[in-house]
Formats: sequence, C-alpha cells, structure tokens
Amino acid sequence: MLAAAARISEPGPGVTRLPFTDEHARANDLISGWMQDAGLAVRRDSAGTLIGRREGTDPGAGTFLMGSHQDSVRGGGAFDGIMGVVLPILALQALGDTALPFAVEVLAFADEEGVRFPTALIGPRALAGTLDPAVLGMEDRGGVRLRDALAGFGDPDALAGVARPRAEVIGYLETHIEQGPVLEAEDLPVGIVTAIAGIERHSVTITGRAAHAGTTPMALRQDALCAAAELVGAVERICRTTPEAVGTIGHLDVTPNVVNAIPARVDCTIELRSAEDATRARVRAAVEAAAGRAATARDCTLSLEQTYRQPAKACDPGLQDDLEAAITATGLRPLRLMSGATHDASAMADLCPVAMLFVRCREGISHHPEEFASPEDMAAAIGVLQRLLLARTGLRP
Amino acid sequence: MLAAAARISEPGPGVTRLPFTDEHARANDLISGWMQDAGLAVRRDSAGTLIGRREGTDPGAGTFLMGSHQDSVRGGGAFDGIMGVVLPILALQALGDTALPFAVEVLAFADEEGVRFPTALIGPRALAGTLDPAVLGMEDRGGVRLRDALAGFGDPDALAGVARPRAEVIGYLETHIEQGPVLEAEDLPVGIVTAIAGIERHSVTITGRAAHAGTTPMALRQDALCAAAELVGAVERICRTTPEAVGTIGHLDVTPNVVNAIPARVDCTIELRSAEDATRARVRAAVEAAAGRAATARDCTLSLEQTYRQPAKACDPGLQDDLEAAITATGLRPLRLMSGATHDASAMADLCPVAMLFVRCREGISHHPEEFASPEDMAAAIGVLQRLLLARTGLRP
Repeated sequence: MLAAAARISEPGPGVTRLPFTDEHARANDLISGWMQDAGLAVRRDSAGTLIGRREGTDPGAGTFLMGSHQDSVRGGGAFDGIMGVVLPILALQALGDTALPFAVEVLAFADEEGVRFPTALIGPRALAGTLDPAVLGMEDRGGVRLRDALAGFGDPDALAGVARPRAEVIGYLETHIEQGPVLEAEDLPVGIVTAIAGIERHSVTITGRAAHAGTTPMALRQDALCAAAELVGAVERICRTTPEAVGTIGHLDVTPNVVNAIPARVDCTIELRSAEDATRARVRAAVEAAAGRAATARDCTLSLEQTYRQPAKACDPGLQDDLEAAITATGLRPLRLMSGATHDASAMADLCPVAMLFVRCREGISHHPEEFASPEDMAAAIGVLQRLLLARTGLRP
Repeated sequence: MLAAAARISEPGPGVTRLPFTDEHARANDLISGWMQDAGLAVRRDSAGTLIGRREGTDPGAGTFLMGSHQDSVRGGGAFDGIMGVVLPILALQALGDTALPFAVEVLAFADEEGVRFPTALIGPRALAGTLDPAVLGMEDRGGVRLRDALAGFGDPDALAGVARPRAEVIGYLETHIEQGPVLEAEDLPVGIVTAIAGIERHSVTITGRAAHAGTTPMALRQDALCAAAELVGAVERICRTTPEAVGTIGHLDVTPNVVNAIPARVDCTIELRSAEDATRARVRAAVEAAAGRAATARDCTLSLEQTYRQPAKACDPGLQDDLEAAITATGLRPLRLMSGATHDASAMADLCPVAMLFVRCREGISHHPEEFASPEDMAAAIGVLQRLLLARTGLRP
C-alpha cells in the first residue's frame, strides 16, 4: 500500500506529493479504495480532509479519530504521514465485525508539511475551529491562491462548518515514524509520545573587534568567535543535562572569516525544543546567562532576539496509559519519548485529547527517499492500535 | 614628511603605493631629497632598494643598516613601512657632523607587502643572497612580469651582485609601527622586539552527521559545530596560558548551516604564531590533541592538515640590549614584545643580526587609512635611534 502511494508523486527522486494537486487527487482515490475495503464510509470535509468512518453501536459514545497527512516534502519518503493513514485502516480492517460502541474515523489530512503554501495544518485546524480564514488568500510559487487550490478538494466558503463539537470527539491518535534515532537506539518497534515539543528560535549577534591575528595578544582580543564557541558549548552542556530538551546552534556565520583576522562578529541561531514550556524557559534563561557571560568575558556585545515561538502540546496522560497497556499486552517495553517535530496532532490538541504512537525508522532518517520503517515494526503498531481500540470499548467521551 | 609621502598614492581612500610603479618612482624622488638633505649619498641597488649612505671614519668598521619599506597595502595608512625610512633619516640628520666610526645606510625597500606580485621581500633577500631568481617570472594581475617591472628601478640580471659580504654588515635595525595594541595598553611610545613570530596555518575539517534538530536527542548527536566550538575554546585557552604565543580560528564555515539541522560538517582554519618555534610546536601538539578529543567525544571524524609554515626569526640579543640601554637613557621603560607580523627584518636576519624598534600605533590599527602614530612617539623613537648610534661608536662588525 505504501509503495502504491509512493508511486503517486511528481517526477524526481523520492516522493513529492503536494496538497490540492493532481497527485493529491489520485492519492485520495487510492486511500478511498482502501477505506472502502475496510468497510469505512468515505467522505471529504470542506478543508480537503479525506475521512473514512466506521459507526459505533452506541450513537452517544462519540467518535475516536485516527490518522495523519497524505502530503510529503519535496523528495521525501514513503512513510512520513501516509503510514499514519494506512496503519489505522488495516487495524480497523483486522477488527472485522467486532463491534465497538464508539465510532472511529480515519483522517487523511491534505497538508501538514507546508511545502506548497506558507501555512499548514489546515485540516486539523478546521476540525478544531482554530483556522484563520486569512490563510485562504496565500499564494503558492505559481501564484495560485490557497482558496482556489482547495476548491477542487473541499469548500473554502464552508470551512467554519468543519469544526467538530468537542463533546462528540473522544480523542485523536496519530501513528507516525519517529523521524529520530531513539527507538532504534533502544531496539524498540514503537514508542509513546509524551508531548509534541514546543519550539523557540533566537537570532544572536556577538560583536567583538577585528584585529590582526599576529599582532594582538590573547589578553587584548575581543574575539567574537571565541565568545560564540563558549555559547555553543553552553547550549550543548545545558541541554545534555536537561531531560526532554534539545538545543541546537545550526547556523553560524563569521565576519570577516579570514585566516589571519580575529573574528569581529558572529551571527548565529539558537533553537530550543522541550516537551514542557517551563523546561524550555529554564533552558532559555540558562542559555541567555551563558551567552552574556561568554560575551562579557571577551569585551564583546551581545544581541539576542527571539524570532519564533510555538508552545509545547502535551499528549493526554490517559491515552498515553492506554497506549502503554496495549504495548505491554503485545509483549513490548513501553518507552515514552518526546516528539521533537510538529505533527497534525499539534493542532488537534486544541480540539480533543491527543496521543501519538511512534514507529521506529531506520537511522532516524526522514524527509528523504531513504526513509524506511520495517513491515515487522508496522505490524507491531497495527497490533497496538487494535488492542487500544478494543480496550477502550467501554469508554464514553 | 609622512603626509607628503602619503599623497603619493593611487586614487582612493588611504594610501595605495605598489612597487615598481609611477607612485614608487615619485616616492623614491621624495625620499632621495630627504636623504640628500641629511647629508646621505643616494643610490639604488639592482633589487630596486633606495639607499642613503653616510660614511664612517674607520673604513674597516663596517656598515650599520636601518630602514624599512616604501610600499603600502591597498587602502593602507601613512606609517606602515615608510615611517621606518623617515625616522632614521631624521636621526642621522640630527647627528649632524658627529663622527661615527662605522658607516650607516638607510634602506627604502621596494616591496614588503606582496600586494602586486605573489612574492615580497625582494630587496632584503637580494641583500642576504637568499633571493630565488624564479620569482622574476611572476606576473601581476595585469600580466606584467616582475622582471620587466623591476627593470625601471634596478637590474634584474644583476641581482646576485646585490648580496652583501656578511663581514661588512654590523646589523639591521628596523623601526616600525607595532600594528598591535600592546604599547598602547602599556602606555609606552616604543618597545623592543624580541623576535618575529613564526607562523603556521592548518586547514581543519570536522565531519559529524546531519540530523533533525528536534528529533535527535543530545546523546545521539554527532554535532560537528559542538566539536569545533570545543576546539576554538582549546586554542584560546592554550594560547592564553603560553607566553609569546597567539592562536586564532579566523575562518569557520558550517554545513548545512540552517537553523533546524544539526551541523554535519565544519571547515575551519587554525593559525598559530610564536616567538620561538619550539613553543609553537608545543602549542600545536596541545591543539591537535584537543581537536582529537573534541571530535572523538562526539563521534565525529577530524582532518587536520598544515597548509603554511614560516619559522620564527629571533632578534639579536646584543642589539636588543643596546636598544634597552638607549630607551632607558631616554627615561622610558624598556618593554620587550614579540612581533606577530612579518617584516623586512625577517629576511635581513639571514644576512646579519637584526633588531626592531616598535612605535605605538593608535588602537593597534594598521593597513587602514586610520593608521596613526603620534609625532611625540615618533620623536621618542628618533631619540632612541640617535642614542643607539652614539652608544655603538666603539663597535666593530
């Protein structure tokens, strides 16, 4: 199924399937067929989300949502997103006629990657009632407005009607490749996500003084790179000693950047992510203090400006416990880990309790043609989904 | 005098006076006039060095050489080089009819900066007999060969005859702006150079592994920038604790250099300078060991290759003591310091004992239109030169 979906792509290496395109339409046809084979009733909502629904025996028991996104990055892999549509369909298919009191829907969201338009998460935001209609005016590189692109897949004028009544929704469970190396390092096929990390980014400039690398003694230097290096080390040290936090200086430019001149200026970024906003705030405070000390010690000036902030979204403790019980019942060790990347579940958290089941991916590689999750690991995930659904049989929203 | 010389420049900010050009010819005319005013006999040698000579009373007493270079960098200042021609002329002029047993020559070398041709120090190398004639085939950007450029200022076919008999030369004393901040920090007008630093440069590549900045826990990273940052810190720490050594990472590039990717690769340079080659070798060993530890600790690989090496040239201890006596006699504190930059004296050291007198320059700035040494500090330097010459009255080569 994933191989068939991967063939629906723009030409070129890997998978390139952008939202509201011919490829998207063909993927929807393929997914619709799978849903029908699993006995699901198929429809699309006005935000372009493809929905396969299985009714429950108790009309008052609400609906449990599962799914992920159909789209890919440019030159991406065959698993990111689409695997989270396929596995719940297979889990429901395997349940066969087994009655569940609550309804179940499998959702295939149109756009999570945000590659075509400078926005993303339209589908889950519409469901949660948090979509800003202004995004409909955004254009892709070809000058096509989101409103017009969406028109063939949904109804841009009926987006408000997509929002679900909160009382009707039990929760949302997203299955996704980990996109990181933790499960591989722990030798586990699946893991329970504790939270989708909050993210903040800072733009940093350290200004020292250019001087001759030969004639300026060490004690009289204002070396901006030495100050920046101390900051890089501090980010590494602070985040290494803080559980569920990561910090990265990914971009760093030196001026004038020549072999025999003391660096006058360094421009760099700091990115911090953590499962908890309070943790991230503590890390930020420690990093800012370290940056100040590093600059002051070398008579440099420091400018540090926050350029981006996205709060953490905690996964529901009850759903995490349900996942743990299902994983334990399949004979596996239930590892909990943070999601460092953003997912549809981030937006769904504004609607209902959310959970995520991570599936091991080879070498942590994603957004690349070599992205890979093994059939055995995906089978384990399907088993966990089935057990979870069966265990929830008595639940009410 | 310096202002008049500074006006002999290509158009543009600061001073641009390259060797074997119309500006060089006009500068030689100006300098020749000064030399004649000071009672010196003026000639040019075949390497294009302008020479003003004052005979001694004892024909067997040899010749004491003083001087520096007439040329500048592009957009340079009014002091670098030319000041070391002007001050000895003024010192000799002030001596008037005072008899010295030895002869004194003031040398204005054609090319120390190496801006026009990819070589430099032709004048002092010719005097020392160390000039490689192959450099005559080098071309400037306009395709003019050094041989042809030199022809109007010297005789490219008679360069071998420029070499001086060692027994005839007492020593070489170069007066030069410090090009660094030490004398300003020590509140001293002049200083005694202990050695012209040896230089080595290394090209370093640290290779880690690109990974997602959100999904890769700190413990599973191979962050090339974190390794490089530890190396930057090690170079700073090692050189801070080693007297008469400096170390600089002036160039550093990060790959892929984006905010949310763990750096996969860092390419940087290391430059080390020291007054003693043995010291520089110790620093290099410590830096290499630190680089290895920084890379290994993060499962990165390290490549470190030496790209340049120039040995240190010690200044003559006897001439340093003579300078110290002259400085002390003028009521100043005799500070000794390393020269981190290369000078004509580097090449002259292959001919005879060399010494250098540094003059304080404002904020350590050189190779820039704002380069400045005060009239008071230059007067102090002239006084030191006079005292040195008088004190050496009894010397034989």
